[in-house]
Amino acid sequence: MENLWKNNLRKIEPYVPGEQSKEQNIVKLNANENPYPPSPKAIEALNSFNCNSLRLYPDANASKLKQALADYYNVTPKNIFVGNGSDDVIAIAFQSFFNGKLPIVYPDLTYSFYPVWCSLFNIPYKTYPVGEDFRINPDDYKEANGGVVIPNPNAPTSIGEGLDFVEKIMNYNRDSVVIIDEAYVDFGGVSSVELTKKYENLLVTGTFSKSRSLAGLRLGFAIGSESLITVMEAVKNSYNSYTVDSLAMEMGTASILDREYFDSTCKKIIATRERVTKEMRSLGFTVLDSSANFIFATRDDLSIKDMFEYLKARKVFIRYFSLPRIDNYVRISIGTDEEMDIFLTELRGYLKK
Amino acid sequence: MENLWKNNLRKIEPYVPGEQSKEQNIVKLNANENPYPPSPKAIEALNSFNCNSLRLYPDANASKLKQALADYYNVTPKNIFVGNGSDDVIAIAFQSFFNGKLPIVYPDLTYSFYPVWCSLFNIPYKTYPVGEDFRINPDDYKEANGGVVIPNPNAPTSIGEGLDFVEKIMNYNRDSVVIIDEAYVDFGGVSSVELTKKYENLLVTGTFSKSRSLAGLRLGFAIGSESLITVMEAVKNSYNSYTVDSLAMEMGTASILDREYFDSTCKKIIATRERVTKEMRSLGFTVLDSSANFIFATRDDLSIKDMFEYLKARKVFIRYFSLPRIDNYVRISIGTDEEMDIFLTELRGYLKK
Repeated sequence: MENLWKNNLRKIEPYVPGEQSKEQNIVKLNANENPYPPSPKAIEALNSFNCNSLRLYPDANASKLKQALADYYNVTPKNIFVGNGSDDVIAIAFQSFFNGKLPIVYPDLTYSFYPVWCSLFNIPYKTYPVGEDFRINPDDYKEANGGVVIPNPNAPTSIGEGLDFVEKIMNYNRDSVVIIDEAYVDFGGVSSVELTKKYENLLVTGTFSKSRSLAGLRLGFAIGSESLITVMEAVKNSYNSYTVDSLAMEMGTASILDREYFDSTCKKIIATRERVTKEMRSLGFTVLDSSANFIFATRDDLSIKDMFEYLKARKVFIRYFSLPRIDNYVRISIGTDEEMDIFLTELRGYLKK
Repeated sequence: MENLWKNNLRKIEPYVPGEQSKEQNIVKLNANENPYPPSPKAIEALNSFNCNSLRLYPDANASKLKQALADYYNVTPKNIFVGNGSDDVIAIAFQSFFNGKLPIVYPDLTYSFYPVWCSLFNIPYKTYPVGEDFRINPDDYKEANGGVVIPNPNAPTSIGEGLDFVEKIMNYNRDSVVIIDEAYVDFGGVSSVELTKKYENLLVTGTFSKSRSLAGLRLGFAIGSESLITVMEAVKNSYNSYTVDSLAMEMGTASILDREYFDSTCKKIIATRERVTKEMRSLGFTVLDSSANFIFATRDDLSIKDMFEYLKARKVFIRYFSLPRIDNYVRISIGTDEEMDIFLTELRGYLKK
C-alpha cells in the first residue's frame, strides 16, 4: 500500500549531459563552444536593455527576432520558429511531425539526443550505419519511414554534404518530414534553407550556440514551410508560450544583424581548423575533412582513450566517446590559435612519451 | 498520394496566449505582471555580467541559483528544480508524475494551461467544480485519481487557502502526486513548502514572473522530495539539458538574495490591492478576498463584458473570460497606485454613464 504514487512516475533512463569541468585554466575543447565572444553589438544590446521591462512577459511571437532571421535567410517570419536552444526546437519538431507508426530514421553515428527524444516521446526509430569513411549514404534513406533526421554537417564526424545529397534525400522522402539539423553549417557547410521553398516537408534547424557564441543564452530556430511552422507553434503554445526570454531576443537580433563580426569569427575558426588538421595529419593522425567547428581524429597505432586521459590530466579537455565504431577516435573543438597551440604541444608531448 | 507526411503532423488545438497589446500609454492590468521593476540587485547582476562567458553553455545543474533558492526556502539544492518559467516546470512535472490510467483532478475554475498540457501529453483529467463562493472543497479530492493539481492562491478567483486545507488534500491523496502551484503565494498566501518535508509526494511550484518582476526572463522552480525532483531532472535532461540561460541564473540568484526589496514591493502591492478592493466594494462591486496580485470582481446589475470593453477603449486593459460561471466577472491585476487611480476614475466614469 505504501507509495503507490511511485507507480505513476515516469520511468526514464536519465540522460547525462556532457562533462562541464569547473576547474580553472583549462583548455576547453570538449563542448564545441566558440572560443570568441559574442558580437559586440549583441553585448551592446544587452547593456542598453531597459531592465525594468523584464517585469513584463516577452513577446510570445518573438516578432523582432523572427524578422531579423527572415531577412538574413531570405524567407518570411512565417517560415521561422524560435525556441530555447536548438534542443528545444528539435524536440518540438519531433513532437510536431513524428506521430506515425513507421520508425523515424537517422544515421547510427550522430547527435546523441535523437534516441533520447524518441524514448521520451515514444517514437519508434531505426538507424542506418554510416559508411567505413563515416559518410552518410543517401540511398539508405529510400525505405518508407516515419520521418528523417540528418545533421549536416554531421556530428561527431564533422563531415558536411552538399545540396545534391539533400535533394536526393528529399526525392526519396516525399511522404515524411525531413529535418536537416544545421547546428554546425556556418563553419563551411552548405545550408539547405533555400530548399525549404521547394520542399514543403523540409525543416532546417539552426542555433546561436556555435557560430554566434551564445550557448549561454539558449537560442535556436527552425526554418520551413508555413505548414510545418504552424504545427510547431501550436505545440509550443501548448507547452510553454514564452520559451524565449526578452534578453535572448534582443541579443539574438543584434547578433544576426552583425554580419561582419559573424563572418570574421567563422573565418578565423575555419583557418585554425585547417591549420590544426594539417599539423595533426603530419603527426600521423587520420583527421576527417571537417565542415564544422571541431575535428574528428584517430591514429591506429595509439590508444586514443589513453591519449584523451593524458591530455585531460594536463588540463586539455577534448571529447572521447566510448561507443562502437568510434571508440578509438576523439572529437576536438576548435579553440583560439593559442589554445590549439597548447593542445598541439601537449599532443606532441604525449607522442614522445 | 500527395502530402502523405501531413498525416503524421500533430493534431492539436492551438492554444492562444493572452492578448498583449503593443499600444503605448495603456494601463496594463490584464496579465498579472508586477508594476514594479525587478530588484536593483538583479539589474546590477546583469550589468556586471561577463558577457563573453555567454559563448559557453550554462551550468546545466544551475547550482548557484538552486543554492540561493534552497537557502531562501530552508531546503537543500536536491529539493529544487528550476526551469524556463513555471509553465515549463509544471509541464515537466505533468510528464514526470502523471503516467497512470486514472484521471488527474483539479478545480473547474483554474489556470487554463492544465487542460492544454493534459491534451498535449495525453493525460486523462477530471475537474471538480469550486463552490458558489468560488472556494475549493478539499473533500472533493477524496476519490482515487492519477494526480492532483491545485493553485494556491487559485486563479482567476484570487482565493488562498491555509495549510489545514493542503494537509487535508495530502491525507486524502497518499497514492498520487499532489502539485500545489504557488505562482501567487507571495502576495499574502500561505506557502506549503514546509509540508514537502512531511509529504514525499507533494510538489510546490513557484515563479519569478509575479512577485519578483522577472516575467521577461522566464524563470520558475519546484520544491519537493528528492524522489520527485530526481524524476523531473531526468525528464528535463531528456528534453533539453540547458533550459535556464546564464543571464537568468545570475539575475534570479540576485533577486532571491535581495529580501528587502522583495518584501517592500510585495507589501506595496498588497496595500494597493486592499485599497482598490475597498473602493470597488464601496462602488457596489462584489470583490472576492484576494491573496494574489489581482482581484476578481463582479456587479450583478452590470454587464461586466460591456464594462471591460468600455475600459479597453479608454486604454485600461483588464481581463475578461468568456467562460461558464465567470462570464460576468473581471480579473484586475494590481498596478501602481497611480495606475489603479486611473482605473478607478475610468470605472467611476463607466458607472455614471
